Amino acid sequence: MTNSKKILAVAVMFTLMNASCSRKISITPQQAATMSRPSVDTLKNFKVIRLPIIKPSDKLLIKARGQFGLHEAGELKDMMARFNPLITDTIIGDVKVKIITPVHINPAYAGKIAIYIHGGGFIMGSPTDRTSMLMANEMGIKTFSIDYSLAPEAKFPVAMNECVTVYRHLVQQYQPQNITCWSISAGCTHMLAMLIKAKQDGLPMINSMALLSPAADISGNGDAVKSNDGRDILGYRNQADKMFAAPFAGNASLTDPLVSPVYATYPSDFPATILATSTRDLFLSNAVRTHWKIRNAGGNAELLVAEGMWHAFQSYPDLPEAAENRKAVQQFLYYKLVQADTAKNTALVKRFIIEVINGQKFELLGEIWAQDMIWHGGSMGDITGLPAYKKMMEASVSGSFSAMHLSIRNIIASGNKVVVYFQNSGKNIGPFMGNKATGKHAAWDGMGIYRISNGKIAEAWFSEDLLSMFQQLGFLKSGN
Amino acid sequence: MTNSKKILAVAVMFTLMNASCSRKISITPQQAATMSRPSVDTLKNFKVIRLPIIKPSDKLLIKARGQFGLHEAGELKDMMARFNPLITDTIIGDVKVKIITPVHINPAYAGKIAIYIHGGGFIMGSPTDRTSMLMANEMGIKTFSIDYSLAPEAKFPVAMNECVTVYRHLVQQYQPQNITCWSISAGCTHMLAMLIKAKQDGLPMINSMALLSPAADISGNGDAVKSNDGRDILGYRNQADKMFAAPFAGNASLTDPLVSPVYATYPSDFPATILATSTRDLFLSNAVRTHWKIRNAGGNAELLVAEGMWHAFQSYPDLPEAAENRKAVQQFLYYKLVQADTAKNTALVKRFIIEVINGQKFELLGEIWAQDMIWHGGSMGDITGLPAYKKMMEASVSGSFSAMHLSIRNIIASGNKVVVYFQNSGKNIGPFMGNKATGKHAAWDGMGIYRISNGKIAEAWFSEDLLSMFQQLGFLKSGN
Repeated sequence: MTNSKKILAVAVMFTLMNASCSRKISITPQQAATMSRPSVDTLKNFKVIRLPIIKPSDKLLIKARGQFGLHEAGELKDMMARFNPLITDTIIGDVKVKIITPVHINPAYAGKIAIYIHGGGFIMGSPTDRTSMLMANEMGIKTFSIDYSLAPEAKFPVAMNECVTVYRHLVQQYQPQNITCWSISAGCTHMLAMLIKAKQDGLPMINSMALLSPAADISGNGDAVKSNDGRDILGYRNQADKMFAAPFAGNASLTDPLVSPVYATYPSDFPATILATSTRDLFLSNAVRTHWKIRNAGGNAELLVAEGMWHAFQSYPDLPEAAENRKAVQQFLYYKLVQADTAKNTALVKRFIIEVINGQKFELLGEIWAQDMIWHGGSMGDITGLPAYKKMMEASVSGSFSAMHLSIRNIIASGNKVVVYFQNSGKNIGPFMGNKATGKHAAWDGMGIYRISNGKIAEAWFSEDLLSMFQQLGFLKSGN
Repeated sequence: MTNSKKILAVAVMFTLMNASCSRKISITPQQAATMSRPSVDTLKNFKVIRLPIIKPSDKLLIKARGQFGLHEAGELKDMMARFNPLITDTIIGDVKVKIITPVHINPAYAGKIAIYIHGGGFIMGSPTDRTSMLMANEMGIKTFSIDYSLAPEAKFPVAMNECVTVYRHLVQQYQPQNITCWSISAGCTHMLAMLIKAKQDGLPMINSMALLSPAADISGNGDAVKSNDGRDILGYRNQADKMFAAPFAGNASLTDPLVSPVYATYPSDFPATILATSTRDLFLSNAVRTHWKIRNAGGNAELLVAEGMWHAFQSYPDLPEAAENRKAVQQFLYYKLVQADTAKNTALVKRFIIEVINGQKFELLGEIWAQDMIWHGGSMGDITGLPAYKKMMEASVSGSFSAMHLSIRNIIASGNKVVVYFQNSGKNIGPFMGNKATGKHAAWDGMGIYRISNGKIAEAWFSEDLLSMFQQLGFLKSGN
């Protein structure tokens, strides 16, 4: 290694460790006035250097990665002391993945998972970094953190393809609507590209996503790359471009839609996305542009901008703005994961009606109804517990009526309830409610309210126009 | 007027007309790459001057207002040629208001209104400016545009109090949930202060609000006031501060919560708010901070940031980013106004049950049900038209049953439908469905689905457990 390269190496490392000897970030009293004191102090202690305009060697980048790794190892120790989750190593496809299982899983996330892709400018970073640990443990959700191959050794599209491999396995193993994801900085580049590629490959879209300070455009295009260069802890020229973007992209164009996914075409069923950036973020414009891109494709996207904060500030455990932003992001993901339940509840009730009532597949009852279910049938009485209900279903459908069919007139879902307005019909071939079989056909309307809990029907109330059925079957003597 | 003041007056006017002879705004090719071509061209043609550091005289400000008024008169002519709405002058309380009635009122906004407060740095501007005309006519909503008193003649809190006067009258005249509002730049300062003051005065909060490039903090605090000074078409030093803020605030503190309402305490029932700013907006930080302020108070707020655009760009009729932003803002307001209908629909159905069914106020039927309503009663038959329904209600309730009471077990609303699961009860005192009176009491369950259209119940479907009622009253001979 030459002397000049040694000097550069030290400079790079110092930049990464936020402890260089170069100039401080300017912050006026009127700018400090709108930030929390701890954030002002943190920003004041940053020093940004402009690297000499030399393309860093691969060897130097790998050395910087090692230094950054030592720094992150210390952070992981702190995170373990705070949260102490179970961290297990696994291989999905042929890709290394860390599974983070928090001590307390939020009951709302039972059976649900998250995917995480770490940042670090494509060349460094760890799948158990602070953002993985803070988000997984604060949310209480089992998290699959992809340990993708880093540049400069692995260039585009290696990491993206690894992420798609993991994605492909997880959407087969879990319901896509039970999967959320988040990422930070360069991890967002991989995550957006993973989703765009997954869509191109015909894979289903997952529920939701959070992008923290997304590097969705690494070409240098955009307003804030210029206006925030020198105001952020991350500089563009020679840092974001020569040190991170070029070693990753290799020969690919920096505006290739899978290299800088803000240039991609977004599908309307793209995961509901929250983008969190900040006024000093070098990539503010990337977040802003991606927000519009998803919205304009018909997708659901929300934007958060933190006042005065810098690139990837969200990874600071205790800064008030960082905690506030993570909380807002987590509320968004929670709402989307739980909101998706309304559609799933409707599908569950439809499946019950079509497959069990109309299709007479009584063996599915245990998948659809909870063991301790309660059925309120009005005149038909109440039934508690799945075995009793199954017995009634079998007796009623095979004993009293044949060719039973329930057609849905209207279905209305809200919260944990699904309301069905239906027409019931069948041929009366056996005794029913104290009446002898008539061999006649009858059709009558009814309504039902189903309450769903933990993915199964827990309780249901019915009001059917049995008087009409009695009239049609001649069970009713007119007048008193 | 001295010569130096004359030079200043010309400079001020030229600034206002965006045609000064001073330096251009810098825009690099990589910044231009992420904006529409017409917006780049518009921005390139702006020239920003830094005024000499002299406090402008009131006379000068008023003269500048006159010049700006001539400019706006030309814009109004263009707007009238495009939209040709009815514009009427009125006085609400003692405040001048322009009512803009678009040629085409969106049916979803029948009976709904908007309040608008124009911008112009507190010292100038018109209630029929482009933002009023574009938003009112693009949405198709009747708009009350407040012609408030301008600084420097009228200082804080004159304009705010005038806005509160108009607000007070409108929330009495219209359902608060039928009122939306929007404003731009300094108009947002007045609008936020109006709402905070209205809340302090015990007035109800309205449905929703859009803040376009809000000047929620005129103290000069914040990150972007510094970082966007010189990048935006509006400069801070000597323009936003000496020309606009100081003449308006007078002796009040610039961080008084009603002068710079980002410093106010926000109620949790604050109107759902969309804030639209842009990366070059001098007031970017104001929008960002107000967004967090409303969110953290438990309110509903969304943020839009337009890439590369400048302060108050939303008022440009044809720039793609401006049109895109107005459309997004209008979709937000539409959704909030229509979403509020779900709560109103529930209240309407509850009122019907409590006042008409249980309270027997049949005179209210015309307020609650549409004239051409349809009632589907299952075994009880169908009824079309309000007169027939009213006759049935009176005959059934007064003729067949006394002490009729419907108690709500569960109510579920979604979209334009309200589902009620209820228990019906009453004493059978007259003939019913071919049966003679029994004098017995009965209680039976039922469900109803109500469809609401234009604020009235248009159609309803019922499924009641009349079989149970027949059993209880002895109308049913057991067995066949």
